[in-house]
Amino acid sequence: MTTTGNLTQLGTKVETPASPELAILETVPFARTDGPPAIVRFTCPEFTSLCPVTGQPDFAHIVIDYAPDELLVESKSLKLFMTSFRNHGAFHEDCTVAIGKRVVEATKPLWLRIAGYWYPRGGIPIDVFWQTGTPPEGAWLPETGVAPYRGRG
Amino acid sequence: MTTTGNLTQLGTKVETPASPELAILETVPFARTDGPPAIVRFTCPEFTSLCPVTGQPDFAHIVIDYAPDELLVESKSLKLFMTSFRNHGAFHEDCTVAIGKRVVEATKPLWLRIAGYWYPRGGIPIDVFWQTGTPPEGAWLPETGVAPYRGRG
Amino acid sequence: MTTTGNLTQLGTKVETPASPELAILETVPFARTDGPPAIVRFTCPEFTSLCPVTGQPDFAHIVIDYAPDELLVESKSLKLFMTSFRNHGAFHEDCTVAIGKRVVEATKPLWLRIAGYWYPRGGIPIDVFWQTGTPPEGAWLPETGVAPYRGRG
Amino acid sequence: MTTTGNLTQLGTKVETPASPELAILETVPFARTDGPPAIVRFTCPEFTSLCPVTGQPDFAHIVIDYAPDELLVESKSLKLFMTSFRNHGAFHEDCTVAIGKRVVEATKPLWLRIAGYWYPRGGIPIDVFWQTGTPPEGAWLPETGVAPYRGRG
Amino acid sequence: MTTTGNLTQLGTKVETPASPELAILETVPFARTDGPPAIVRFTCPEFTSLCPVTGQPDFAHIVIDYAPDELLVESKSLKLFMTSFRNHGAFHEDCTVAIGKRVVEATKPLWLRIAGYWYPRGGIPIDVFWQTGTPPEGAWLPETGVAPYRGRG
Amino acid sequence: MTTTGNLTQLGTKVETPASPELAILETVPFARTDGPPAIVRFTCPEFTSLCPVTGQPDFAHIVIDYAPDELLVESKSLKLFMTSFRNHGAFHEDCTVAIGKRVVEATKPLWLRIAGYWYPRGGIPIDVFWQTGTPPEGAWLPETGVAPYRGRG
Amino acid sequence: MTTTGNLTQLGTKVETPASPELAILETVPFARTDGPPAIVRFTCPEFTSLCPVTGQPDFAHIVIDYAPDELLVESKSLKLFMTSFRNHGAFHEDCTVAIGKRVVEATKPLWLRIAGYWYPRGGIPIDVFWQTGTPPEGAWLPETGVAPYRGRG
Amino acid sequence: MTTTGNLTQLGTKVETPASPELAILETVPFARTDGPPAIVRFTCPEFTSLCPVTGQPDFAHIVIDYAPDELLVESKSLKLFMTSFRNHGAFHEDCTVAIGKRVVEATKPLWLRIAGYWYPRGGIPIDVFWQTGTPPEGAWLPETGVAPYRGRG
Amino acid sequence: MTTTGNLTQLGTKVETPASPELAILETVPFARTDGPPAIVRFTCPEFTSLCPVTGQPDFAHIVIDYAPDELLVESKSLKLFMTSFRNHGAFHEDCTVAIGKRVVEATKPLWLRIAGYWYPRGGIPIDVFWQTGTPPEGAWLPETGVAPYRGRG
Amino acid sequence: MTTTGNLTQLGTKVETPASPELAILETVPFARTDGPPAIVRFTCPEFTSLCPVTGQPDFAHIVIDYAPDELLVESKSLKLFMTSFRNHGAFHEDCTVAIGKRVVEATKPLWLRIAGYWYPRGGIPIDVFWQTGTPPEGAWLPETGVAPYRGRG
Ligand SMILES: [Ca+2]
Ligand SMILES: [Ca+2]
Ligand SMILES: [Ca+2]
Ligand SMILES: [Ca+2]
Ligand SMILES: [Ca+2]
Ligand SMILES: [Ca+2]
Ligand SMILES: [Ca+2]
Ligand SMILES: [Ca+2]
Ligand SMILES: [Ca+2]
Ligand SMILES: [Ca+2]
Ligand SMILES: [Ca+2]
Ligand SMILES: [Ca+2]
Ligand SMILES: [Ca+2]
Ligand SMILES: [Ca+2]
Ligand SMILES: [Ca+2]
Ligand SMILES: [Ca+2]
Repeated sequence: MTTTGNLTQLGTKVETPASPELAILETVPFARTDGPPAIVRFTCPEFTSLCPVTGQPDFAHIVIDYAPDELLVESKSLKLFMTSFRNHGAFHEDCTVAIGKRVVEATKPLWLRIAGYWYPRGGIPIDVFWQTGTPPEGAWLPETGVAPYRGRG
Repeated sequence: MTTTGNLTQLGTKVETPASPELAILETVPFARTDGPPAIVRFTCPEFTSLCPVTGQPDFAHIVIDYAPDELLVESKSLKLFMTSFRNHGAFHEDCTVAIGKRVVEATKPLWLRIAGYWYPRGGIPIDVFWQTGTPPEGAWLPETGVAPYRGRG
Repeated sequence: MTTTGNLTQLGTKVETPASPELAILETVPFARTDGPPAIVRFTCPEFTSLCPVTGQPDFAHIVIDYAPDELLVESKSLKLFMTSFRNHGAFHEDCTVAIGKRVVEATKPLWLRIAGYWYPRGGIPIDVFWQTGTPPEGAWLPETGVAPYRGRG
Repeated sequence: MTTTGNLTQLGTKVETPASPELAILETVPFARTDGPPAIVRFTCPEFTSLCPVTGQPDFAHIVIDYAPDELLVESKSLKLFMTSFRNHGAFHEDCTVAIGKRVVEATKPLWLRIAGYWYPRGGIPIDVFWQTGTPPEGAWLPETGVAPYRGRG
Repeated sequence: MTTTGNLTQLGTKVETPASPELAILETVPFARTDGPPAIVRFTCPEFTSLCPVTGQPDFAHIVIDYAPDELLVESKSLKLFMTSFRNHGAFHEDCTVAIGKRVVEATKPLWLRIAGYWYPRGGIPIDVFWQTGTPPEGAWLPETGVAPYRGRG
Repeated sequence: MTTTGNLTQLGTKVETPASPELAILETVPFARTDGPPAIVRFTCPEFTSLCPVTGQPDFAHIVIDYAPDELLVESKSLKLFMTSFRNHGAFHEDCTVAIGKRVVEATKPLWLRIAGYWYPRGGIPIDVFWQTGTPPEGAWLPETGVAPYRGRG
Repeated sequence: MTTTGNLTQLGTKVETPASPELAILETVPFARTDGPPAIVRFTCPEFTSLCPVTGQPDFAHIVIDYAPDELLVESKSLKLFMTSFRNHGAFHEDCTVAIGKRVVEATKPLWLRIAGYWYPRGGIPIDVFWQTGTPPEGAWLPETGVAPYRGRG
Repeated sequence: MTTTGNLTQLGTKVETPASPELAILETVPFARTDGPPAIVRFTCPEFTSLCPVTGQPDFAHIVIDYAPDELLVESKSLKLFMTSFRNHGAFHEDCTVAIGKRVVEATKPLWLRIAGYWYPRGGIPIDVFWQTGTPPEGAWLPETGVAPYRGRG
Repeated sequence: MTTTGNLTQLGTKVETPASPELAILETVPFARTDGPPAIVRFTCPEFTSLCPVTGQPDFAHIVIDYAPDELLVESKSLKLFMTSFRNHGAFHEDCTVAIGKRVVEATKPLWLRIAGYWYPRGGIPIDVFWQTGTPPEGAWLPETGVAPYRGRG
Repeated sequence: MTTTGNLTQLGTKVETPASPELAILETVPFARTDGPPAIVRFTCPEFTSLCPVTGQPDFAHIVIDYAPDELLVESKSLKLFMTSFRNHGAFHEDCTVAIGKRVVEATKPLWLRIAGYWYPRGGIPIDVFWQTGTPPEGAWLPETGVAPYRGRG
């Protein structure tokens, strides 16, 4: 089992990983008690990646909700993971889902969902919403409340 | 199967199609994995068409949500398609539903819904909401959050 | 069946009807396809009627959502109908429901709901919400999003 | 059956009742037709009572939703009833529920709910939400949309 | 000098005046002390008049700021005056300025300004702003803060 | 000179004064340094008084800005003073200015302004703005930012 | 002098002019009295033109404020003029200023300003603000209050 | 059974407890009647604790909803309990859930939920949502409505 | 002259200073060019101190604007300074001004202003605004835009 | 004189410049007429650079207002210039001012100002505001309206 003692990035000066593949999502144990699962939400307004076709930067506002089972994402490793997309090329739909899947892989949560609110291109922004299944029975999952896009005015 | 290599409009200088009929909605493959479908949202605040009776311009703010199965809408072709309504006459209700149906026809999604928020005429705006069925089980589909109309004050 | 050719008010200079009873709600055919019904929303922030007791003007912000079956409300006739309440006296609750019922009578929709957000009297505004039944299965019906009342501050 | 002709306060100069016990909630008949019930909402941002322990004024923003059966609350009597709490001492939880119960007693509605949004004391506001049961099947009951509390900033 | 004892409308059941000409703007004395003038603001979201050409109703949200000298507008007479425009035809620009001038005539204030925020016609709302001169030195005159118009989205 | 040691209400259980005349606005010394004056703002959303004509409660949202010279208002005494209007009858314009003048009298500030945002009566709210003179040179005085009134919608 | 009797477009079915050059801005006389000028604001959220380089549609939200001298813009002719840009190519900066100048030419106002809030291209919207000079002394000119652009989140 | 007479902190000058363990959550009896439970919401924007690793302060906005059975939280004791975290170190997820569990332990409610909206660290805020089970049948539980995080812009 | 090489806290693990007196505000050189000064704004929503009378925690949202001359505040030292108030007792007015003066002392700016938006006590929040003088000629100083306080509703 | 014919980047596929030094800000001629200057605003919510000390990404929302004299910034070259900061290290204050100065150097405007709204670090965001001088006489320069920072809640 991963313990806090195993963390390699927290409290240490760590270089930004050069790619998502090189980023290490670390975890800390979560003492889940009986009863419905807790929901944990990360809001990441500082996300940027590259367009796989043109190489131009893309920007997104990412929101992740998950129901941890035995492991929590260690938040500094999450930040480094998000930062590792800076020089990575991917389509909006794939990129959003892939981030969600990496967190699933690392923490084996009871449930996870992710929203990617991408900045407009050609006057049309794209949002991507994905979750691993119906939210867990008995858990509380508020709306993300992100404002809709409005060109001008 | 449609592949990115087949795209005829992306990365090319393309004239705005003269009518929706002449517009080509192109697609790219979507590697849908097991589990609940992802939802993709396009927000189009730059839509305009013509009143079929008076020929006067109409304006709308269009939001499309769909659950891609094997195909994604290629977004530049979507933009061109939306632009092709510029000289096209149609009633609000018909026009909104027709846009949704064209995206269904092109991408054969698991599910789709569309909202057309039309600008007021005679002091009364009309909104049109349509979907192909009950949203897919297990998918996450946030509210569009578009503000209600308020004349003045 | 009512057709556009039968319309007596659209594209013609028509006097405001002197009362709701004299107003004629006209319709146009709606080519409803298979699948879940579309929802159409009218937002009417310009509504005024009279208090049946004091004769003083009342004001309301009215929102109508309906699922057309074979007939759409012709919007100019709707505007004239709404305007016909200008010299009509009615209580908030009755007036709101009555408007909804007239649209039901004229269009025989699959479903309809109406909200009347009346301006405050004695520091207390009254809202009236009514619908013909549970919304149709598979239809999409967003919130109206009207802001709550707040006296001052 | 209560009729409008029985009203003792409407259109008359009436003193503010000295306590809730002395206030008379009057009603008017409601011609409920077949089908799902209408919902009527009162928003009362001008409510004040006294702390039963310290005698200091308390303030609240009160929202009442109900589904009238055969009787409507006469709104001037409601205003006088709300005003009658001005010199009345009660805890937030009890006071909110008690207002709801008085309206239930007077109008015997199909259903009622009440929200009391009390102003902060000790930096912490208290909200109280109560209803008589699950909302009636087929009725439309929008969110109250009251903004959450935020100390400063 | 006009005194409260001279008021003919306050605390009396008064019919709505049939036209602005027939409406009587009454005043009460204001004990203005030395120092900069106070500013008094009326906000009137319930204004409606008629289009002088088509006879169709127009709606506006009116805000009046004035610096009373020796007379205050009696607010019930102001309400009756505003209501008297209900069957009166006037252009937006003229109507807004005329309301301001009537209040000037009745109260002879140190200064007055008026804003008329008219509901859109042809997709374009018109606002009219007028004042009698530069605001009085040393008076405090906050912004009206009325939201800008936005068609949809 | 008033010192903290002279305070009679702070840290003591004090009855609400029965009228503004009986309320005591206490002060504490303020060590004003050289340079432009500081501005202190109190926001009081819990204000209520009585209509001098009908005896019905009035409500207001009061904002006071002042530039203390040698004395600060002790805030508990301010709260008691504001509360003392609960059974006091006064017109909006007079009441607002009178509150400002009492604070001037108690603290002899370099400058003061007050805004009373009164809840609507007859559909028209009244705001009253008053200040003792042009704001002091070099002081910083942000907008109060109170939202404008909007009946409904 | 232009009079209402000279109007060629109001109350008549008029084709949308094919270009701004072909559009006719008509005027009506304005009875300006002594004292500071009134300000009239048009808000036009339905503006679209073409990019002069690519031919792709551009969209903007246009706000015009002017101080009429002897002539008002007739609002139907303004709408037709704005619509005439639909097939016209122009850069944002030039187009915005040119609209303002046409209104100046037609109405010879005391003063005019215009704002063009253009929709984003390449992730960056452009706003253009122009006026004919310092606003007239003694006129009241509120902020336009248009919301700033925010990509997403 | 705990009664108000047993309260040791209300109306008494009490030192802030040095730790959550030393804080005493007191209760008052709640006269729950038949029918669906009431919901009581506390909003606590003044929460601060320490990072267990670095000792740096953390801040959170905490919202607690519960359905009291026979006991209410006495609100002054709640405030003291919340304040007792000031020098306490805990991770966001653990801390949020632990606060909820203490209120459960003290009041044995029918149901409780808690939200901790923690301020951003490393550009990413964490929200924690937990509840004891599915909300009680027939109770009314509005959204908390807390705004989503947005870095800047 | 202070240089970056002299910094003792940046990039080092530093304990929170036990009091403001022990906190060290460090600076870095600022290469001010000719022309009007730049304005730098810090927004600190995580501020807490103690009431000097009761020892209870106070909370504030602090905004600092300054025009650096030759020195910038090093931001980590600013954070530690702000944190050092956690166990410090001070009145709102004094505390706010004192923070401003410490930054003045450390950086000798061309100009500085500070706003303290304190959380409500007794239902009334206090804001304190102070600046060192009239803002420098030619500098740009936008509004802070902090929302006004509103109890509930 | 720079003409459109000289543009090397518009309508061409251009690689993102590797650093601001390598980016070329191109211009197009601006036909400035007599009278007060126009103001042009660019809003750039997609800006990111690197911390010069840690190499970690920084994010900002940048707003540029300028009064062009004879040259406009060509907007594609502006976008490429903004993008060129992606791998560039600079302090917030220096970086913001430097962007402004480069636009000044390229376009020699009558006047320019820039705002950098940087995302929070250590819980405190920094804003930087700079302009070349007092705005030009007679030009219209609306507020940027960017929302203030608020940690959570
Ligand atoms: Ca498990
Ligand atoms: Ca774009
Ligand atoms: Ca399939
Ligand atoms: Ca049928
Ligand atoms: Ca019955
Ligand atoms: Ca005089
Ligand atoms: Ca219209
Ligand atoms: Ca002195
Ligand atoms: Ca009222
Ligand atoms: Ca002239
Ligand atoms: Ca029990
Ligand atoms: Ca941060
Ligand atoms: Ca110097
Ligand atoms: Ca409080
Ligand atoms: Ca020149
Ligand atoms: Ca931080």
